[in-house]
Amino acid sequence: MSSTPKTEVFKTERLVIIGLGLIGGSLACALQKARAAGEVSIKTIVGCNRSLEGLKAAKQNGVIDEFCTDAAETVKDADIVVLGVPVLSIRPILEQIRSHLKPGAIVSDVGSVKQLVVDDMTELLTNTGVHWVPAHPIAGSEQSGVSAAQPGLFKGRKVILTPSENSEPRAVAQIDAMWRATGAERFHMSVSEHDRVLAATSHLPHLLAFSLVDTLASQERGWDVFKFAAGGFRDFSRIAASDPKMWHDIFLSNREAVIEALDLFSADLTNLRQHLLDEDGESLIEVFKRAKAARDHFEEQFQNTGSDIE
Amino acid sequence: MSSTPKTEVFKTERLVIIGLGLIGGSLACALQKARAAGEVSIKTIVGCNRSLEGLKAAKQNGVIDEFCTDAAETVKDADIVVLGVPVLSIRPILEQIRSHLKPGAIVSDVGSVKQLVVDDMTELLTNTGVHWVPAHPIAGSEQSGVSAAQPGLFKGRKVILTPSENSEPRAVAQIDAMWRATGAERFHMSVSEHDRVLAATSHLPHLLAFSLVDTLASQERGWDVFKFAAGGFRDFSRIAASDPKMWHDIFLSNREAVIEALDLFSADLTNLRQHLLDEDGESLIEVFKRAKAARDHFEEQFQNTGSDIE
Repeated sequence: MSSTPKTEVFKTERLVIIGLGLIGGSLACALQKARAAGEVSIKTIVGCNRSLEGLKAAKQNGVIDEFCTDAAETVKDADIVVLGVPVLSIRPILEQIRSHLKPGAIVSDVGSVKQLVVDDMTELLTNTGVHWVPAHPIAGSEQSGVSAAQPGLFKGRKVILTPSENSEPRAVAQIDAMWRATGAERFHMSVSEHDRVLAATSHLPHLLAFSLVDTLASQERGWDVFKFAAGGFRDFSRIAASDPKMWHDIFLSNREAVIEALDLFSADLTNLRQHLLDEDGESLIEVFKRAKAARDHFEEQFQNTGSDIE
Repeated sequence: MSSTPKTEVFKTERLVIIGLGLIGGSLACALQKARAAGEVSIKTIVGCNRSLEGLKAAKQNGVIDEFCTDAAETVKDADIVVLGVPVLSIRPILEQIRSHLKPGAIVSDVGSVKQLVVDDMTELLTNTGVHWVPAHPIAGSEQSGVSAAQPGLFKGRKVILTPSENSEPRAVAQIDAMWRATGAERFHMSVSEHDRVLAATSHLPHLLAFSLVDTLASQERGWDVFKFAAGGFRDFSRIAASDPKMWHDIFLSNREAVIEALDLFSADLTNLRQHLLDEDGESLIEVFKRAKAARDHFEEQFQNTGSDIE
């Protein structure tokens, strides 16, 4: 629309994405699309994985311009390096690349946990002349891998940046602008707030889904029990199909906040069990009504904030 | 296809659905569609609710042929009466209608819990000359009301019938044929097996979803916490938007089986919490991998069994 105010163009020369999976790949896709539309100016988008699998196809499909399997080598002239790897792989990669980064380069990530990442970046990047701006795009699906990447994954979705007081403002603005180009809404938040909110709304639900599916599958009937499960169970348990390694990393990295959220949940669940034992229908329906009102509110809000992931 | 064997036509004169909500309404829709295609022979499909709201629109939209707000009055000449009401409303309705049913009439229901329904039917219908065949279509959505009804709701879905040794075979065959006409796959199962399986795959997930959403909404941030929830949480919590009254009834009616399933789940969740405390990544990933394998199996099975509810 002609009335849309002109926004600043995201400009960089060499953008390297280490760990070209669903999130890294979708970031590349979205930036390629923005570039084709003249909305950003990026000279080269580079994908880096340890194995060639996926990289070749990604180049062929126009997701990336170049690829490389050596992280240290590929960051040498990088202006921006986005780490798209699982949270616990960030530290070993930082150790590999830190001495190869050029001064002024910006390092960011896409991890679902921020305290550990900030600690690692602070320890390994301080006094290297490199800037770091941790970020977390709240988007994804139970699918994984660059083959599931899509340019619209972040459209209308939220990206949380957790810069510190010491962060270089220009570096923060660059990462913010990069995510703006994907169509995402950006929020800046403290590290501890991020980790607590995500423990509650993402990590705990994943833990419950993994746990329930495993409990059911371990019963006498085994997988047969799922024969009579319906669409409600399908939705509820979808996140239990998520990548085990990625979630292993998230839970170990955000242990304390997850346990805190889990204990709050368990206390309420114990109360609910007591209501059941007591045949206390009034208390049950009170909880269900409150939950339904909150869930209906969430749905409305969710539908008003951009496209869904399909 | 011409090679399809000719199946027996479902034939009845007067079919009354008491409680024309999502399930009752969708049953009516599906039967109307089958009737229009010449697959069933039903003289009159009658909808009965206490209030006129919905009934008039349902008639106008061709969902039902007639409607009535007086259950006792409307069952007088009925050949089949399907109770589409919440589980705890079945008993009071049976008390209302039992002396008005004609000998040979068949009473069925759509309740998600069967022991209580069987107990009520056995107590109230024995020696009345009326047959009863409890049934449970495993289909639905977080939506409710006849306005959400759709003819395809049961297509490819499963319907569990729980007849007893004393059930009249012709009556069982009639209810089976009725559900076959909706495109559903029918299973016959014992009452206790039904209630245990449903407690695990449906009732417990609903309890967890209601409980988690309520826990989150009750925190300091209140509904604001949902601002940063993503598609995974959306799927996981969808069933928390289900009808509180209906679920209140289900939980009270299937208390023992639900508590049994909940306790199994809680024991496993406690172990998972200990793995977290112990930073025992190996055990965590083992659980997640098992869960993912089971969930992937379920998804494959689910996709191969007919249409989804959308």
